[in-house]
Amino acid sequence: MSKTSIHTARVEFGDCDPAGIVFFPNFSCWMDAASHRFFRQCGLPPWRDPAELPGCVGGPLLEIHTRFLKSATYGETIEVHTDVEAWRPKAFIQRHRVTRGDELLCQGRETRALCVKLPNGRLKAVPIPDSIRRICS
Amino acid sequence: MSKTSIHTARVEFGDCDPAGIVFFPNFSCWMDAASHRFFRQCGLPPWRDPAELPGCVGGPLLEIHTRFLKSATYGETIEVHTDVEAWRPKAFIQRHRVTRGDELLCQGRETRALCVKLPNGRLKAVPIPDSIRRICS
Amino acid sequence: MSKTSIHTARVEFGDCDPAGIVFFPNFSCWMDAASHRFFRQCGLPPWRDPAELPGCVGGPLLEIHTRFLKSATYGETIEVHTDVEAWRPKAFIQRHRVTRGDELLCQGRETRALCVKLPNGRLKAVPIPDSIRRICS
Amino acid sequence: MSKTSIHTARVEFGDCDPAGIVFFPNFSCWMDAASHRFFRQCGLPPWRDPAELPGCVGGPLLEIHTRFLKSATYGETIEVHTDVEAWRPKAFIQRHRVTRGDELLCQGRETRALCVKLPNGRLKAVPIPDSIRRICS
Repeated sequence: MSKTSIHTARVEFGDCDPAGIVFFPNFSCWMDAASHRFFRQCGLPPWRDPAELPGCVGGPLLEIHTRFLKSATYGETIEVHTDVEAWRPKAFIQRHRVTRGDELLCQGRETRALCVKLPNGRLKAVPIPDSIRRICS
Repeated sequence: MSKTSIHTARVEFGDCDPAGIVFFPNFSCWMDAASHRFFRQCGLPPWRDPAELPGCVGGPLLEIHTRFLKSATYGETIEVHTDVEAWRPKAFIQRHRVTRGDELLCQGRETRALCVKLPNGRLKAVPIPDSIRRICS
Repeated sequence: MSKTSIHTARVEFGDCDPAGIVFFPNFSCWMDAASHRFFRQCGLPPWRDPAELPGCVGGPLLEIHTRFLKSATYGETIEVHTDVEAWRPKAFIQRHRVTRGDELLCQGRETRALCVKLPNGRLKAVPIPDSIRRICS
Repeated sequence: MSKTSIHTARVEFGDCDPAGIVFFPNFSCWMDAASHRFFRQCGLPPWRDPAELPGCVGGPLLEIHTRFLKSATYGETIEVHTDVEAWRPKAFIQRHRVTRGDELLCQGRETRALCVKLPNGRLKAVPIPDSIRRICS
């Protein structure tokens, strides 16, 4: 059984496009917020702070895949239900289900690496510490 | 052989996150801009105006799939190379390759429906007119 | 005595820039959300629906003025305290105080017109109905 | 006589709101991009790199003031004309005029501090080096 977090967001006027519906990249923004929230609710500090990972900048994306089933508009409240589907040595896959009440609006899968910033400014994927994996499963 | 458009964008400071790299949903924004640009460069009017499709609101997303290979940061210029990979009766698949010079930064695939807004405010997918398909292939 | 609404927002990773602080236009986004929320909390329907104003598109901005006193970063929760400072025949001034706990982060003043969309697509400012003014004061 | 830079931007579909016009915080985004561009066109490196200011994070905003005269919509091209109106010991005021062809769409004034990031993560305003002032006037 895996841990699941719920991130709630209100859809604002400015999140919507001239068609009157959410401009789709905003769903990625909410999923990113939900990704951060998942780890915080599991008890981790923000990505910038983990003692075991000096220079950590969090989990940049390797791949995203999202299916949009229904549109949403401003004034509505949505929930993003998030868990980790799989752990890889230097990456993990998060799954997000975005709902409005009983309706599934969209679902996404994100593959992320855990990265630190090197002194030269470049990012480098690092092995995911067991402690993180354990606390989040 | 299919038509390809090129959309150029500068990466701005505000497009980047605390890790100093592009916040990934912005790649979806650039791909969306590139999608619109593709059709304009093929000779179509903006989606709001096509004479054959009164009430058209453009091509909302059904699905996106993006692979991120390299990060980008502010001060850089990127190009989005766009074509239509496949036409379906009421949908089409656009392919985007985002490059910085010779480097491939990310590639995405968007499945979009062509929609009109009904008098009740809801969106409805409509068959893609032959004229649009022809002019864009 | 005037009505005041409170809009709560979490600062997300993606709201912040390479300096690690909120990218300032996001404060305008939160103030816009707070403006909408103010009218909803006063009992008005969303701007798209007011029976007295067919074609209403809400209150586009005529002027904004914001002072930034302290920065904010992700993981923090902020509140936007909003009221209407003045009503003009075809415009109103909203005041927003953004706080984090006891600290004032920034304060803004927005002058907005109330607009309807004409059949030709242009926006036109209209007199603010007494009923709206009454319910919001 | 002061130096002026011109930053060109296309208004994209996703920059516009359900009223079909630019969501106003995007004008602040374009002005921010124009602010960076101004200094680059004057010959400065990106803010992250100035040799004289190790740890520089650029010029966070102290105050913004914008007047919106006309709306803009997607498919249009705008220009942001930028100069420095005044230099203060630890701050400067930039002026932006946003135009579409001959029309003035909006004008803004930004007061910015020049800041470095201290080892404890906080930002601190620093005196503006004469060399920067000279090269940009």
